[in-house]
Amino acid sequence: MKKVNASIITIGDELLIGQTIDTNSAFIAQELNKVGIWVRRRIAVGDVFDDIWKALDEETAASEIVIVTGGLGPTADDITKPLLCQYFGGRLVENEEVLKHIIYLFETIYRRPGPLLDRNRKQAEVPDTCAVLMNERGTAPGMWFTKEVNGIKRIVVSLPGVPFEMKGLIEKQVILRLITEFQTPVILHRTLLTVGVGESMLAEKIKDWEENLPAHIKLAYLPHYGMVRLRLTSLGNEKKGLEEEIGRLFSELKELVKEWLVIDEDLTLPQVVAKLLLKKNQTVGTAESCTGGYIAHLVSRDPGSSNTYKGSVISYDNQVKLELLKVNKETLDTVGAVSEEVVKQMAATALELLKTDYVITTSGILGPDGGTEQKPVGLIWIAIGSKNGIRANHFNFRFDRIRNMEQAAIVALEMLRKEMVKGE
Amino acid sequence: MKKVNASIITIGDELLIGQTIDTNSAFIAQELNKVGIWVRRRIAVGDVFDDIWKALDEETAASEIVIVTGGLGPTADDITKPLLCQYFGGRLVENEEVLKHIIYLFETIYRRPGPLLDRNRKQAEVPDTCAVLMNERGTAPGMWFTKEVNGIKRIVVSLPGVPFEMKGLIEKQVILRLITEFQTPVILHRTLLTVGVGESMLAEKIKDWEENLPAHIKLAYLPHYGMVRLRLTSLGNEKKGLEEEIGRLFSELKELVKEWLVIDEDLTLPQVVAKLLLKKNQTVGTAESCTGGYIAHLVSRDPGSSNTYKGSVISYDNQVKLELLKVNKETLDTVGAVSEEVVKQMAATALELLKTDYVITTSGILGPDGGTEQKPVGLIWIAIGSKNGIRANHFNFRFDRIRNMEQAAIVALEMLRKEMVKGE
Repeated sequence: MKKVNASIITIGDELLIGQTIDTNSAFIAQELNKVGIWVRRRIAVGDVFDDIWKALDEETAASEIVIVTGGLGPTADDITKPLLCQYFGGRLVENEEVLKHIIYLFETIYRRPGPLLDRNRKQAEVPDTCAVLMNERGTAPGMWFTKEVNGIKRIVVSLPGVPFEMKGLIEKQVILRLITEFQTPVILHRTLLTVGVGESMLAEKIKDWEENLPAHIKLAYLPHYGMVRLRLTSLGNEKKGLEEEIGRLFSELKELVKEWLVIDEDLTLPQVVAKLLLKKNQTVGTAESCTGGYIAHLVSRDPGSSNTYKGSVISYDNQVKLELLKVNKETLDTVGAVSEEVVKQMAATALELLKTDYVITTSGILGPDGGTEQKPVGLIWIAIGSKNGIRANHFNFRFDRIRNMEQAAIVALEMLRKEMVKGE
Repeated sequence: MKKVNASIITIGDELLIGQTIDTNSAFIAQELNKVGIWVRRRIAVGDVFDDIWKALDEETAASEIVIVTGGLGPTADDITKPLLCQYFGGRLVENEEVLKHIIYLFETIYRRPGPLLDRNRKQAEVPDTCAVLMNERGTAPGMWFTKEVNGIKRIVVSLPGVPFEMKGLIEKQVILRLITEFQTPVILHRTLLTVGVGESMLAEKIKDWEENLPAHIKLAYLPHYGMVRLRLTSLGNEKKGLEEEIGRLFSELKELVKEWLVIDEDLTLPQVVAKLLLKKNQTVGTAESCTGGYIAHLVSRDPGSSNTYKGSVISYDNQVKLELLKVNKETLDTVGAVSEEVVKQMAATALELLKTDYVITTSGILGPDGGTEQKPVGLIWIAIGSKNGIRANHFNFRFDRIRNMEQAAIVALEMLRKEMVKGE
């Protein structure tokens, strides 16, 4: 079966000057991919008439489906909607249902007194050549256009750029319409997570196996901070056969990389840890210095985290280490806060205070300042405490502040995971 | 003066299936913008020969500068480098300096025993038609190509996709080479931050002023979670004149929006709070329940945060609220954890424990589960405590879990900021 191709066009100067990171495209790509639609190209252009027009020409020529986001807000430069109107023919008309919804939002949800502003009322105008997609979460509606290019029908969907609004429209309307419109192939993914091995060593290990993969199955290496995810992707018609085949190949792959295998699902490391804790009905807490609550954030971010995470004492300042975490003053004065002794003392007290099965503690120098010859920027001590004792390790990262913090968090979570599966 | 245009091409299937969010493009765009180079288009393509070739054709036709990232790792599908070689002519040759650097990395930094793998040695191969940009931070070098299209010289720079490596090459080599190669115009930005007003109200307020802006000055609205940044951009030749002009217009803008103005710099809200604290030589701590350390993370992420942030007690679990934060058991049993009483009690104890000038406390229901009719998902209580007393407020957010958390953090930081500037 032929692939159904899609392109994503994002509109907005803020993307081109780097003031905003584009998270919309990744979300849209994921959702399309789940239903067997392949995103072939993504393109970002500014609020410039000719550039938007050119992008529409190019992408409708290349793909059956084009998703456009941005350019529809109440202060947008009045470029995108008139452009779409001109591109697809027709004229702008006020849509009664959209107008009612806008009035409802301002009266009931936003509670803005006074008459509706012209610029808000104008958001109810849509080209009369499109199908309107009602946007429950905001004032700018989605618009669904069709056009024939080279004898093939193309779908162009224009959505607001606000992520929360765009997501609602994609999830509740766009995907459903697309799968009734197209006969899409089956796309299957299987992903596993490895820790503690480099991309090239991993590739060397599975080289022969990889060379014998059938042509419709692709392997991708996705390295990220000392972890490498391996993803198998299969494309075809017949779900059952594909599932059996990819299942068999995935088992072979797991066997080949078993010494570094963390989990055979597409989970993040915090999710792996939460899953292990839940299985054992255990809990974790943190006592962080240099990571400043980042590990607490990672283990509390996902839904259901209150089952496994209890709390933290963040001791960014030494006074908090002394008073709340009962770190010994003499230890601080002699070996300093960034030391094995201190992270161990933090762990001992944190286990008592938080009454969790495990604690993670950190103390280090993230940079850019604060390093010395003995303790350079990037030196981080991490301890894991449990009823089986307290183990500490130190690491020398060589990155910038933010990446040192992220790397410390990953290393700490991996230390905890290893501690949990030890002897299994 | 004519704009110098750039395009960014990112290569990699992981971007097209949404498994990775593209942060590289935003960084590159920022750096180019600082030196007066305008990013006109950004495009992402998969690991597909024809798609990469087509993107190179299109972007070298559209822009003087094309930055390409990705496709150079040791397990890349051997597409990008041979393609570049074919595109620009020449043949792949082993570069001695790069090879020495790769051997050095494996022996000294990665400490991998045994002989160099073929796939790592191959990373030292570069087309003999490019200038090599040594990559201190990894094995894959950058490559600098020139090509004439329509009688105009184009620069194509190919960089590894690993953010840390790409950043090093951009900062230390690419930008310096580009500014010696091109006469770039002056681009000036002035950005301010407003809180507590919607995008359309703001636009209404400054409508007349905005309409009279000269053609070379653009105003952008950048809304984000209840905050709106306004950015003036000016483009021209003569720095001094432009600076005077944009300075005058920026003052007028500040006067127009003064009732919602938070700061007249391009700072985030945590940075604004840190700046205020530093000025007054004051400190902050947090006692978070539902936000789980996210606020602690926001106030500790930036360099120098140890001057203003001391620590936190994260009480995700009620037991931690009772024991560490001395929340009254009867209060918990009667009005529950998500209540004015509890966030106030948390604040009172946290002020004592952390000995900070201010504390921020939170308790709420982020979702997706845990809501009731009386206390629905999205209800969040926030308190700010200081020597002037403890004030609490509640909010009803209607978003998903992550956005409820982010919104709560922003609202909390804004409550703190207001408390700090009160009576000034």
